[in-house]
Amino acid sequence: MSENTVTVKNDSRHELRELVSSQLQILLEQNNLEGVKALLLPVQPVDIAEAIESLPSQMQLIAFRLLNKTEAIDVYEHLDYTVQQSLIEQFKRQEVIDIVDKMSPDDRAHLFDELPASVVSRILEQLSPEERQATNLILGYEEDTAGRIMTPEYISLKQNLTVEQTLEKIRSLAPNSELVYYMYVVDQSRHLVGIVSLRDLVLHEPQQTLENIMTKDVIYVKTDMDQEEVARLIQRYDLLALPVVDKELRLVGIVTVDDVIDVLEQEATEDIYALGAVSSDGDNYFQTNLFTVARRRVTWLLVLLLTNTVTGSIIGAQEDVLTQVTVLAAFIPLLIGTGGNIGTQSSTVVIRGLSTDEISDLGPAKVVFREAIAGLLLGLILGLLATIWAYFLPQTDKNIIVSLSVGISLIAISTLASISGSALPFLFRRLGLDPALMSAPFITTAVDVLGVLIYFNIARLMLGI
Amino acid sequence: MSENTVTVKNDSRHELRELVSSQLQILLEQNNLEGVKALLLPVQPVDIAEAIESLPSQMQLIAFRLLNKTEAIDVYEHLDYTVQQSLIEQFKRQEVIDIVDKMSPDDRAHLFDELPASVVSRILEQLSPEERQATNLILGYEEDTAGRIMTPEYISLKQNLTVEQTLEKIRSLAPNSELVYYMYVVDQSRHLVGIVSLRDLVLHEPQQTLENIMTKDVIYVKTDMDQEEVARLIQRYDLLALPVVDKELRLVGIVTVDDVIDVLEQEATEDIYALGAVSSDGDNYFQTNLFTVARRRVTWLLVLLLTNTVTGSIIGAQEDVLTQVTVLAAFIPLLIGTGGNIGTQSSTVVIRGLSTDEISDLGPAKVVFREAIAGLLLGLILGLLATIWAYFLPQTDKNIIVSLSVGISLIAISTLASISGSALPFLFRRLGLDPALMSAPFITTAVDVLGVLIYFNIARLMLGI
Repeated sequence: MSENTVTVKNDSRHELRELVSSQLQILLEQNNLEGVKALLLPVQPVDIAEAIESLPSQMQLIAFRLLNKTEAIDVYEHLDYTVQQSLIEQFKRQEVIDIVDKMSPDDRAHLFDELPASVVSRILEQLSPEERQATNLILGYEEDTAGRIMTPEYISLKQNLTVEQTLEKIRSLAPNSELVYYMYVVDQSRHLVGIVSLRDLVLHEPQQTLENIMTKDVIYVKTDMDQEEVARLIQRYDLLALPVVDKELRLVGIVTVDDVIDVLEQEATEDIYALGAVSSDGDNYFQTNLFTVARRRVTWLLVLLLTNTVTGSIIGAQEDVLTQVTVLAAFIPLLIGTGGNIGTQSSTVVIRGLSTDEISDLGPAKVVFREAIAGLLLGLILGLLATIWAYFLPQTDKNIIVSLSVGISLIAISTLASISGSALPFLFRRLGLDPALMSAPFITTAVDVLGVLIYFNIARLMLGI
Repeated sequence: MSENTVTVKNDSRHELRELVSSQLQILLEQNNLEGVKALLLPVQPVDIAEAIESLPSQMQLIAFRLLNKTEAIDVYEHLDYTVQQSLIEQFKRQEVIDIVDKMSPDDRAHLFDELPASVVSRILEQLSPEERQATNLILGYEEDTAGRIMTPEYISLKQNLTVEQTLEKIRSLAPNSELVYYMYVVDQSRHLVGIVSLRDLVLHEPQQTLENIMTKDVIYVKTDMDQEEVARLIQRYDLLALPVVDKELRLVGIVTVDDVIDVLEQEATEDIYALGAVSSDGDNYFQTNLFTVARRRVTWLLVLLLTNTVTGSIIGAQEDVLTQVTVLAAFIPLLIGTGGNIGTQSSTVVIRGLSTDEISDLGPAKVVFREAIAGLLLGLILGLLATIWAYFLPQTDKNIIVSLSVGISLIAISTLASISGSALPFLFRRLGLDPALMSAPFITTAVDVLGVLIYFNIARLMLGI
C-alpha cells in the first residue's frame, strides 16, 4: 500500500503518462541523464514502470539505472515479467542483490515463477538469510492459494504490550511492513490470538494493554485456501487485510486488499477467456508468442471440430430428404445459430451467477426451470417470425409444411438450448469441474447436434418422407 | 470498513451461515425471541442479512425488530433491495426514520433509486436536515459516476492543526466516518490542499502541524468521472480511498476501496453478459421476472435472426450446386461453426484486453495482424484434419475435389474470422460504442454469412459449376 507517494495533480492522467513515455525516450536519445532524473522525479513508480516498458530494450537498463535505490525497487515490482527478466539478465551481480533482496516476498515469488530455475537458484543463494527464508516459505505453497499471495511482512505483537509501547514499536517497524493499519497479536508459539487496528490504538488510552482492546474472534484463512475464496471473504466483510495461518494455526502472513483486487480481476479474465474457449494460464495473452497463443486455442477447437463432424454426419445421412427438398438446407444456419445463441445466453448468466454466488439462493432445479420457460417464450416469438420468413422465401414456393417445420423446430430447439445452457454448468460443477468450461463455443456446438436432429426429424414427420 | 466486528472463528463459514439461517427460522417458529437474540449475537451483519433474506416474508420484520439499533442499520444496508423495500413498507414511521437516517448516504441513495418516488419523497421529508442534504447531494449525480459511489462521511481538517490536536479530533469523530485511515486537509473554501494518513500522524511528533506532514500532491477525481475509471485509479495506485471534488475543486466526498471491489465485479458481470448477448441493467438477473429476462435477451436474438436469414438466403440461392452435390450441405455446420469459434476466441481476448488496459501498449494494427497469423495457423491445422475427414465421410465417395474445397474454405474462414473478431471490437470502440457488444453470438452470426459465401464460391470454382 503506497499512500505518501501520490504525486501528480491531473485528471487526464492517461495523456500525461503517454507524454512522460515519449519525453523519456527523447531525453535518453540525447543522453540527457539529468533531464531524465528531473522528468521522473514527480512520477509514480507504476507510471515510471510503464514508461520504461515502452522504451526500446537497449534503453531500458540505462533508464532503470538512473532511479534512486528505493524507487528502483518500487518500479521494478511494477514491471512486466518479460522486462523484469530481461533486466535481471543484464544486471551486475550487486544490482541483482540490491533489487531482489528488497522486493516484497510475494512479488519476488511471482518473479521467480517466471525465471529459469537456474537463475532462481543463483539469486536465492545471494539473498540475505531472512529474505531467502521468506521467499522459500511463499514458493512452497501451491499456485493460486492464500500462501502464494500473502506477504510475510506484517506486524505481530505480544498481548501484554500497552497501547503506548505498541505505538513506539510501530514507529520503528512501519517502513518495513506493507500495511500498518492492522496488527496481529500472537502468543508464545505464534498462534494468532487477536487483532488490533491502528484506529483502536488511537482511540484507546496509552496505558491499556492489547489484551484488553484487541478483537479476539478473528476471521483468518489457512495457507491452502484458494485465492478466489480469500478474495471473496475480504470483499464480503469489507476488510483491509486478512491473516493467514498454517496447519498448526500459527500466523505466517497476511493478504491485503490491493492484492485481492488483482485476484478478482484475474479470476474474471479467466472466466471470460473460458467463456470464449481460450484457455488461460495467468500470463498476459498479448505478451505471449504466437505458438503459445495457438496452443491455448487449438485444444478447444479440436474438440469442437469433432463435435461439428457429428453434426455434419447427421446432415450427410439426410441425403434422401435433402435431394427431395433442397431448400431445407437453407434453414440450417438459422436454426442451429439461434439455438446456439439462446444456449449461450443461458449458460452465460448461470456461469456468472455461480461465480459471484448470486445464484446460491435458488437451487439448480428452479434456475433450469426458469430458463426453460424463458427459452420457450423466446422460441415462440422467434418461431413465429421464422415461419413467416420461410413462407415468403422465394425458394420455398410458399410451402406451408416446410415453413411450419422450421417454426416448430425453432421453438423446440430454443427450449432445449435454454435447458442445456443452464443445466450443463451445474452438472460441471457437480462433477468438480469449472462451470466456465461450458463456453459459448461449446454450448453452440453441442446445441448444433441437437438442432439438426430435431429439425430433420420434424421435417421428415411433416413432409411424410 | 468494519474491522472490530470480525466474529466467527471458522473455516467452513458457508456451512455455518446455512446453519444460522435454518436455526433462525426454527427459533422464530417457536416464538423463542431470546433464543434468536442469542443466536445472532456473534454473527456478522452481512451474514444476519443473508439469514433474514432466506426467511418467509412474514418473519423478516419480526427477526429484524429483534436486532439492536446500531446493528439494525448495518444489517439493513446489507439486505437485497427487494427485502429493503418490503421492510420499509411495513415499518412504522419512527422505525423508518431510525434506520434510513443512520444509513450511510451512498447506500441510502442506492435504496432510493429502487423505491417508488412517492415513498422516497415521504422519507426524505422525515430525515434530519444534514442527512437529507447529503442524500440529495449524491442523488444529484449521474448513475455510475464517482459522485454516486462516494460517501460524504470523511474527516476534513485545517492545515494549522497539530498532530496532537488532530488525534484528539479523530477520537471524537471516528464513529461517524466510514474510514479514518486517510484525513483530508482543506482551506477556507473547502478546496483540497493535502492528505494525511493515520500512519503519518502516528509516525510524527505531536507538535508538528498538518501543513508540514501532509502530502500535497494528491490524486483526486471529479464527481462525473465514470466509476470504472475511479476503480482503475484506486487499483493502479493501491489506494485505500480517493477524494472526490466538484467542478470548483471543492472536496465533496471520498470513494473507498471496498466500493471499488464491488464496482469492478459489477463491470466484469456487465462485460460477461454483453459477451453472452444478454443486456444488463445492474439488477440481479436471477431476481428479475421472466418478462424482464425475455426482454433483455430478445433484442439481440432478433438482430441475430435477421443476420441468420441472410445466411439462409445465400444458401437458398445455391440450390443448383446443392442439387448436384447434396453432400456440400453436410459441411456447413463444420465450416461456420469453426469460423464462429475462432472469431469468438479473438474477440474475447481483445475485448478483455481493452477492458483491463492490457492491450494499450500494442496498437490495433499489431493486434489484428497477430490474430490474423494465429487464425491462419489454426486454420492450417484444422483445414488439414477437415480435408481428411471429408475424404473419408461415406457420402463424399472419396471425392478429393469436395474434400479440398472444405479444407481450403476452412483456412480462409479461420483467417477472416480472426481478423473480424479482433478488428470489430476496436472499430466499435472508435465509434464510441462498448466493444463488449461484439459478443460471441454476434461474431458467430457475422462469420456465418462470410463463411457460406467463401465456401460456396470456392466449391463452385473447384467443381466448375
